[in-house]
Parts: sequence; C-alpha cells; structure tokens
Amino acid sequence: MSRPETPLLDRIAGPSDLKAFSDHDLSRIADELRAEVISAVSETGGHLGSSLGVVELAVAIHAVFNTPVDKLVWDVGHQCYPHKILTGRRDRIRTLRQRDGLSGFTKRAESEFDPFGAAHSSTSISAALGFAVARDMGQPTGDAIAVIGDGSISAGMAYEALNNAGHEKRRLFVILNDNEMSIAPPVGAMSAYLSGLYANTPLHRMAEGFEAALPGPFRDGARRARQLVTGLPGGQGTLFEELGFTYIGPIDGHDMDQLLAVLRAARARADGPVLIHACTVKGKGYSFAESSADKYHGVAKFDVVSGTQKKAKSNAPSYTSVFGKTLTDEASRDPRVVAVTAAMPSGTGLNIMADRFPARVFDVGIAEQHAVTFAAAMAAGGLKPFCAIYSTFLQRGYDQVVHDVALQNLPVRFAIDRAGLVGADGPTHAGAFDIGYMASLPNMVVMAAADEAELVHMVATAAHYDEGPIAFRYPRGEGTGVEMPERGQPIEIGKGRIVQEGDAVAILSFGAHLSECLKAAEELAARGLSTTVADARFAKPLDTALIGQLAKQHRALITVEQGARGGFGAQVLHHLADKGALDRGLRIRTMTLPDRFIDQASPADMYAEAKLTASDIAATALEALGVVPAAFGEARA
Amino acid sequence: MSRPETPLLDRIAGPSDLKAFSDHDLSRIADELRAEVISAVSETGGHLGSSLGVVELAVAIHAVFNTPVDKLVWDVGHQCYPHKILTGRRDRIRTLRQRDGLSGFTKRAESEFDPFGAAHSSTSISAALGFAVARDMGQPTGDAIAVIGDGSISAGMAYEALNNAGHEKRRLFVILNDNEMSIAPPVGAMSAYLSGLYANTPLHRMAEGFEAALPGPFRDGARRARQLVTGLPGGQGTLFEELGFTYIGPIDGHDMDQLLAVLRAARARADGPVLIHACTVKGKGYSFAESSADKYHGVAKFDVVSGTQKKAKSNAPSYTSVFGKTLTDEASRDPRVVAVTAAMPSGTGLNIMADRFPARVFDVGIAEQHAVTFAAAMAAGGLKPFCAIYSTFLQRGYDQVVHDVALQNLPVRFAIDRAGLVGADGPTHAGAFDIGYMASLPNMVVMAAADEAELVHMVATAAHYDEGPIAFRYPRGEGTGVEMPERGQPIEIGKGRIVQEGDAVAILSFGAHLSECLKAAEELAARGLSTTVADARFAKPLDTALIGQLAKQHRALITVEQGARGGFGAQVLHHLADKGALDRGLRIRTMTLPDRFIDQASPADMYAEAKLTASDIAATALEALGVVPAAFGEARA
Repeated sequence: MSRPETPLLDRIAGPSDLKAFSDHDLSRIADELRAEVISAVSETGGHLGSSLGVVELAVAIHAVFNTPVDKLVWDVGHQCYPHKILTGRRDRIRTLRQRDGLSGFTKRAESEFDPFGAAHSSTSISAALGFAVARDMGQPTGDAIAVIGDGSISAGMAYEALNNAGHEKRRLFVILNDNEMSIAPPVGAMSAYLSGLYANTPLHRMAEGFEAALPGPFRDGARRARQLVTGLPGGQGTLFEELGFTYIGPIDGHDMDQLLAVLRAARARADGPVLIHACTVKGKGYSFAESSADKYHGVAKFDVVSGTQKKAKSNAPSYTSVFGKTLTDEASRDPRVVAVTAAMPSGTGLNIMADRFPARVFDVGIAEQHAVTFAAAMAAGGLKPFCAIYSTFLQRGYDQVVHDVALQNLPVRFAIDRAGLVGADGPTHAGAFDIGYMASLPNMVVMAAADEAELVHMVATAAHYDEGPIAFRYPRGEGTGVEMPERGQPIEIGKGRIVQEGDAVAILSFGAHLSECLKAAEELAARGLSTTVADARFAKPLDTALIGQLAKQHRALITVEQGARGGFGAQVLHHLADKGALDRGLRIRTMTLPDRFIDQASPADMYAEAKLTASDIAATALEALGVVPAAFGEARA
Repeated sequence: MSRPETPLLDRIAGPSDLKAFSDHDLSRIADELRAEVISAVSETGGHLGSSLGVVELAVAIHAVFNTPVDKLVWDVGHQCYPHKILTGRRDRIRTLRQRDGLSGFTKRAESEFDPFGAAHSSTSISAALGFAVARDMGQPTGDAIAVIGDGSISAGMAYEALNNAGHEKRRLFVILNDNEMSIAPPVGAMSAYLSGLYANTPLHRMAEGFEAALPGPFRDGARRARQLVTGLPGGQGTLFEELGFTYIGPIDGHDMDQLLAVLRAARARADGPVLIHACTVKGKGYSFAESSADKYHGVAKFDVVSGTQKKAKSNAPSYTSVFGKTLTDEASRDPRVVAVTAAMPSGTGLNIMADRFPARVFDVGIAEQHAVTFAAAMAAGGLKPFCAIYSTFLQRGYDQVVHDVALQNLPVRFAIDRAGLVGADGPTHAGAFDIGYMASLPNMVVMAAADEAELVHMVATAAHYDEGPIAFRYPRGEGTGVEMPERGQPIEIGKGRIVQEGDAVAILSFGAHLSECLKAAEELAARGLSTTVADARFAKPLDTALIGQLAKQHRALITVEQGARGGFGAQVLHHLADKGALDRGLRIRTMTLPDRFIDQASPADMYAEAKLTASDIAATALEALGVVPAAFGEARA
C-alpha cells in the first residue's frame, strides 16, 4: 500500500517542532497529517471520522500552546489520532487499537502528552479544571485546555463542570468541537441551541478584550458579530456566558488562520474561563467519510481509494442484533414495551426497533443518569421500559439504578450489552463490574446469556417479568451460531440448567463463557474426567437447588464468569458459606476477571491474558481435584 | 404541648377537598398548614426549612392540579411534609422519620400521592418526563409536575433531563423552587445566573399565550417584564428557553394569588414543557428558621416558642468531625492536601478545613460526577485531593471512580462518610454498597475505620499513600469514645490487627461493627468459648496472612461488615476458595446487611432488623461451631 507524501510532517518529531513553521506551512502540515491519518486508519481501523474533524485543531493547539507543560485533554479521546502523530507516536500509529499497540484513546501511561486519559465522554472540562487548580496552587503545570464535542457537552457531567468552572473563574480553555454529530446525530435541546448559535452568527463573536488582540481583518467582523448577537445593553448572552465563560465563536475549525488567530488571542488575554466554539465537519477531507451517515465514526480496515471497508465475514448474528430484533418482536406483541438508549441507537441494536416503532424508542443523548430514572418513571407509569446501556456506561447511571429503580422495585429491564472484555476498545470499555454492582442490590434479578438463543429467551423473560427490576448481560460481538428459537420463551426466575452431565467435576458458568466451559470439559474428558457443565443463567436469585446438587455430586465445583471478583462467584460462595456447605470441605474455585485492567487485544487474547481460556478452566479443575500438584495452583494464583 | 388552631385545615382529608375553598381561604389554609408543620417537626425533628418554604406551593399545586391522577414529583422529597399533611397523612405526621412512622421523604409504598419516591437530588424532571410519556402512550396518568430546588437543578442529571424534555416537547411542568439555598448556600455559575434573573426581572415574565389567561392586573406587568427581558427581536431568551422550555417567572412563591393565577394559566395553556420560576424563602414564616444560617435545614426536636433545639448530648466526637479535624491537621503539614465536597461542606466536616484553608476546599455543588474527575485531575497535577462524599452519593460518581481514578491509578483519597445504616434518613441514604463497588476495582485500596481513633490513622494513611487511589469508610454519628491519638500514624497497607485473642472462634470485623463483635465475644465467653476478635482494616488488599492464621487456628471464622453481600466477606471467600483453603472444610460465615432495604429507625434498631447485633453475631458463631442445632442457623437464614 502506498503511503502519502508528507515532507513537512516528516520534520515533526514533537509539538515544539511546530513552532518553527509559518502559519501557511502549518496549514500544509495539517493537510499532510490528514492524509497520514487516513492512511494509518485504513490499515488498522478505528475512529476515523472524529479524528479527521480535528486535524487543524490539533495542529493549531500544539502550535500555539506549550504542551506537555500545558495540559491538553481530549474529551472521549477517540479523536486523538492526529494528536498522537504530532506527539512522538507516529512510528507506532499503525499499531492503533491492536495488541501491544497504541491505545485508541488518550492514555496517561502512553505519553506525557496525554495528561489525562479518556474514553467515556464528558470528563474533559472537569479534568482541565483540576489541572488549572493544581497550577494555581503552585504545581509545575501550565494552561489547561479541554476539547469537547457537541455530543459530549450534552451530558450532565459536562454541565456540572462548566457550572463549577464558571464559578471558579480560573484561567481555562474549553474548545467546543461542534460537528453536529456524536456517534449518531446528537439529540436534545442543547444540540438545537448550538445549531441556532451557528445559524444566527455567521461571523466571529469575541469579547472586547480579545478583539484587540486579533489581526485587523478579524477584528471588524468580530465586533460587528458581537453587536448582532448581544444586541443592546440588557440583552442576554449565550448560555455559556450565563455560566460565567467568555464565549468566542463560532469559528471555522478547519480554517487554520482563524484557529491560530483566535487561539493566540485567547492565550494572550484570558484571565478566566474561555469557551471557543469551533465548527468542524466530522470526516473532513475524506469524501467517503463526509458523505456517509455515521461519518466513518468507527471503521474497519478500508481501501483508501474506494472507501470500501473490509469487514470480517460473520458466521453468527451479533448479540446486539439479536437483542434488537427480539425486542422489536416483543414490542410488536405488547404496546407497553418501550426502549431507552443514551446516544447509542445502533450500538445497542435499538435502531432495529426504532425503524418499526419510532415513537417507542427514546434516544436521550449522552445522559445515562437521566435515561435510568426516565425509564423508572415510565415503569411507574405502567409501561415496560427496556433500558439498553453498555455495561461500562451503566456505571454512569448507577445511583439511579439503586435509588430510583431497585429501591422502588420498579420493573425496568436493563439490557446490558458489551459485558465482559470487548477487544479493541480496551480496558476503558470493559464490562467488568456490572455483575457485582447489580447483584448486590435488593430486588434486582440478574441474568447473563450463555449464547444468542438464550438471549432471545431472556428478552422474553424480561418482557414478561413485572415484579421488579431485571437485568440481562451479553457480550460484544457474534453469537456462537446455535440454532435460534422461533420465539423467546420466558425462563423461570432463578432457574439454571444442566448442559452436560458428568460426575467428577462440575463447572458452573454464568454467561457467555459457557462455550469455553464446554471446551474445558472436553479437555478434562481427554484426561478421563467426566464433567458436568451447568449454565447458571441467574446470578440473582441463585438457583440454590442446582448449586447444592453440583456441590454434593462432584468432587470439585468451578464457577466461571466474564466479570470481576464480587460478582457471581461471590454470591455462590456467600450462599454456600452461610448454609454451612463449606463446613466439611468443598473444593470450589471461582474464576473471574483478574484484579487488574487488561489492555486492548482481540477478546480471545484478552481472555487469555485474563487466564480465562478453556485450558485455564480445565487446569483450575485439575488443581482443585488435586490431580496436578499444588504448585500449579500457586503459579496460577 | 399545645397544638395550633387549624379550623380550615381540619376540613381537608385530601387534595380534592381544597377545590371547594376560595382563593382567600386557600391562603388561610396555607397559614394553618405552616403552623401544623412547625408543630409537628418540633416533636419529631426533620427537614423543617425546606418544608416551610413550599407551604403555599403545596397548597396551590394540589388546588389547581388533579393529584393523584396528575403526578406530582417533589425533588429530593425532604420538603414534602406539607404535601403529606394535605394528602391524607396528617394523622401520622408526628411519626415522621421514626421507626414504623412516615418516611422523611416521598415514598411510593406510603401513598398513591407519592408517585415517585426520592431522597437523592435532581431526579424529578426525569421522573416527570417518564410519566408524561406514559400518559402520551395511553396510560391512565394525567399531568406531570416536578418541583425542584435551585440547588438540585445544578446537578448534571437535572440538566440532562431538561435537555431531553426540551427535545421531547411534551406537556410537562417544572416548578423551580428558587430559595438560593440547597443545604448550604448553593455555589456555581447556575446559582449566580438564577439570582441574576431575579434581580433583573422584578415583574412576571410570561410567554404570550399565558399572558392572555392571566387576570388583568398580572397581564400588563407580565408583558412589560417580558419586553424588558427579551428585548428586541434577535435578543436571546433565558437559559431555560434556550433548552426548549416556556419560561414563566420569576414569581413570588409565597403569594397564593400569584401562584394560583400562574398555575391555572399554565395548566390551561401549556402544550409543551413549561418552567415556572418561583422564588421562596427557606424557613419561611418561622423567624428562628428564617434567621438561622442553614434555615433549619435539618433540625432536632425543638421548642416552638424559643426555637431551641433539643440535641442529645454526645459522649464522643462524631466521625465526621474527627475526619474534618484530622484532615485539617494533615493539611497544615502538607500544602498539597486539598479537599472536594459536593454541596456538603458541614455534612462532611470539610467546613472545619475550610475555616482554616478556604482556598483549599472546593465545594463544587451537587455534582458528584464532576467532583470525582476534578479530584482525579488534581491528583494528576500533583496535589493530594480528598474527595469526601457520603457512601450513598458516591454512587453518583461511580463511573468516574472506575474510569478516571482506578483505571488511571490516580491517588485520589475517598473519604466515605455515612457508611452502613444511617438511621432516620432511612434506606435511601444507607451506605450499603460501597465496599463491593470499590473493592472490585483494580488499583483501589479500601479501608474501614473500626472507631474514631482508627479513622485518624486512616486519614494519615491516605495522606501518605501516593501509589494510587485509596478509600476509607466510616459511619454516621458518634464514635465509640476511645482514647484519641495525638496525631495519625500511617497504617501499613493491607495489614489488619488482632484486638483480642482466643482459640475457639475468630470474628473478623471490617469497620465500625468492631464494638458489636467485641460484645459478641463477651456473650461467647459467658458460654465458655474463647474468641479472637480481629479488625481487618482493609477489604483490599486483604491481610491474607491474618486471614490464614484465623482460619487455621480456630474452629470457626465469622466475617462481619456494615455492608451488602459482595463486599468484604466476598473478598475473603474468594481468597480462601482460590487458595484451596476451603477444600478440607472451614466453618465460615459471612455476616452482611441482608438482601433487602431497611426502613428508617435508630441505627441500632436498623441493625437489629438486619440481624447484625452482638447477639446475632454470637448466635452465628454458635451455629457455625455446631453448638446450637442446625435449625437455629436455618431460622436465621
């Protein structure tokens, strides 16, 4: 594959090298940088659209500010590829999102130019304010700059941070990267408001102090625009000004001259919080990205010339699509079924239901807290809400799950996608903690799907269960290819199933690691050990009869789950301990994710790193049975 | 104690009775209601100030709207005493916050007039929107009304809901109860903004459609004010209008005529979301409350005539004050120590540090998400942030704890107050889940203080520990009266201590139930069983040497914690299982909070209800030892 010519970019080993170039050359560097990003992502896949939208911003910020002493925080961090190339990581840019390669997000451990890692949205303003305080308290850190998208700024956390930053009045730069997109087009009143700002103020709008620092051609337009927008004394300012920020913009985020002028002026004059509103185009400069509906938000490897993505052929439907289709099916039979997503209609499969029942699918924006309580009230109002949120993002709505759903025992159905390790998105997106944080809540029913057919039944179970909240988790990616049922059948609450019977050892699986457990049973069979494999289905309520039977009728019991300690295995152990079932001895082992975060790789490689392969399960069983020396077990622990 | 004369209020058995009264009489009813609230709370203690601020609002809303078909949601719910009196609960109002009495918050299980319970702030707009959707989808529910304070509306969740409600455009009423207070005076730019609205618009400001429905005298003023504020075409509206709401106000929230006129006009005309901005006085109508700094936010029983509160004499300092003093002490020795609170400066004891180091204590408002990430960045910037948040409220910042703190291994110190059961505030405020949700996180150190002297050492430990995040939990209320150290000494990470040695049974306590464990040991001693009592101090990392020793040298091991399943006991069990220590039998029992929410009572009564008294612990030990028949253990389980 031929690589783009990048004569100027080749001379940039780090941001300080940018200072030697003229403004005109900086524009050319941006062009070369864009070509390099397209070339690199065509080889790796990744978040292309958002990275292409901030090429000029990345060059301009690094040219004007003094990173890494100045702290630059990219919100979400998935738009950081140009930043990574400029900050000494160009040599590894073609390892993006791969095992042992660069993270697809900003990451402290990776570079001093990533002072604060990200991946979940809307944290950047809080982080920048923290750095600003550290600086003001004498720590050796300079300016703090947050770059945040218009989708991210709709989350409550960003508002909390703006509110606090406006109050603190510290010197701080927030660059609003307004491309009228998040992953999907953003929703919500704030989004409409930002569009209105842009529509109504085609010219720059600058605080008086900043205007003086601008080159002549900008100054007049800025003053004129300011008068247009603010009107006469007594008129109100923008929402950001209400919150205490100096507002500058909207400006063209792809016009290097504008960007440099505004950033230099802001840097020279700011004595408090400044918001710079830059309008950009997601996918800018790559026609296939600009013209696609999702602006190539996340792409597979692709051909640069044709724009064709090389998606791997799948053998089985994804869990996500199975969920979406099954829920649509349930919705067609029960008009009370509604669904809520927090800015992830296609990520959660709810786009499938929205196509058929658009008025019954609610995309609330990046707002998990609101999503959960909104769903709780819909349940209180007699509807059957499915709240579909990735495991890692449900953490954002945890208090609402506790306080509004579990405590009130309201029948909200939580569809927890991306449970377990997720691959290229790495540790920030791992769904590691939900089993524990859900199963510890009174009233909550917690299920996990062993395969895509089980998922169909669990959606049906949730649709039919009205006594209280219920959650079901399932992994990212393809199912196992099992035969699919015509229609979901509700599962009896708290009832697991035996998948395969044996007598030496029992493996009790919770969730999608069932296939690994079955493989482990094969390995054990090869050593003459007959193995029972059971699918617990429920972490809560536990199938205590099944657990009792497994414990009594086997020489060892191994629990397996795609989650951290404190989840399913812990619930099993609590039960056994308090029933006295450990008094006379039980060779029990609980296999969970290890007590560390696992860097990105393929899910299979990540589970191998986590010591959760079929062979690990078999080895644990052997160790528990005393078939291998204790030293083996020690080494594993 | 003489009770107030309430001839009109005596005729109100429910809200529908209000419809028969003239507007003038409704004013008198409000006066009587206020007197009744003061009288009742003087006997029970409770949230007096906020309830007094909404007396007229409660009467007016119930007079104009049609509850319980219309759904009225009080944000936080601590201002609901007038509402409870009006909605058939007057006969029990003097049982507020007591065992088997009325909850101090709204509660679905208590009344159909409480369609959505609360206690944590900022959930009401999300809830009202959920009811509005249910109505629009054909469920038998009427209008949806949220009443939210200016403190609560500063939280991100409220903004998420406003943003979504503005987008949905459904008929919905949000009444902003603006008293310029939350528990403490509110902070943040939004608060300043609301004050500005009030200062700049002394008259009503109404959308055109609403003005026509107003009585004459209001109409002119409203139109005049509207012109004043909105100015000429092109001028911008209020922040709420930017978000898609029709804004009405500010109005006087104690003027019954204004309230009734505005609510009637809004009810008659609204075809989308409406925000009514009512200004009120916290503590209104009771001089001692109005003039006190906290407006009698939460009071003990008091004498109505003198205003004197009857606070119980304390024998030991509160954990909260010990934390505040100790942290101030650490701050005096290390200038990098800073502290963050989310609108709870005195509740967390940080007011003590703020008195001495005002620039080093950050009150970010009701904004736990921002608080955690802001602290994370301060840690990344070289400071030593202590993030002091109640256990139950830290749930609001859980994703930030995972994603910004644990994953980045940043040394944020979490001071988790109100851990365990908290008494009169009941289940919504219980700190039940933090051990589990913190200990499951890689990199996190989790401690619990057995008494107030241990808390001193744990503050010192956290101040000195720089390798990563660390949390320490402690209960609400007084310490045990132990001798206090001169100065805190850092504890070795992961090191518990043996408090009392015995040989029959070992009780391993995590946290403030140590005193109950020692009492249990006395009960066991009385039956001739010598008991080891150990204080684990750490749920993570575990003191595995101590645990191994306890397991080996005793006939039974009992873990005790003030938290839910999946916490400390679960970590101990995981460790023992995976080390093979259960293979040959271990009489182990894990005592946790039960798997249900526990209604308000004294903390001691709540722990009795939870089966976590000294006698329960002793009984569990006896059952584990086989000293009492198994039937006993069964009964307990």
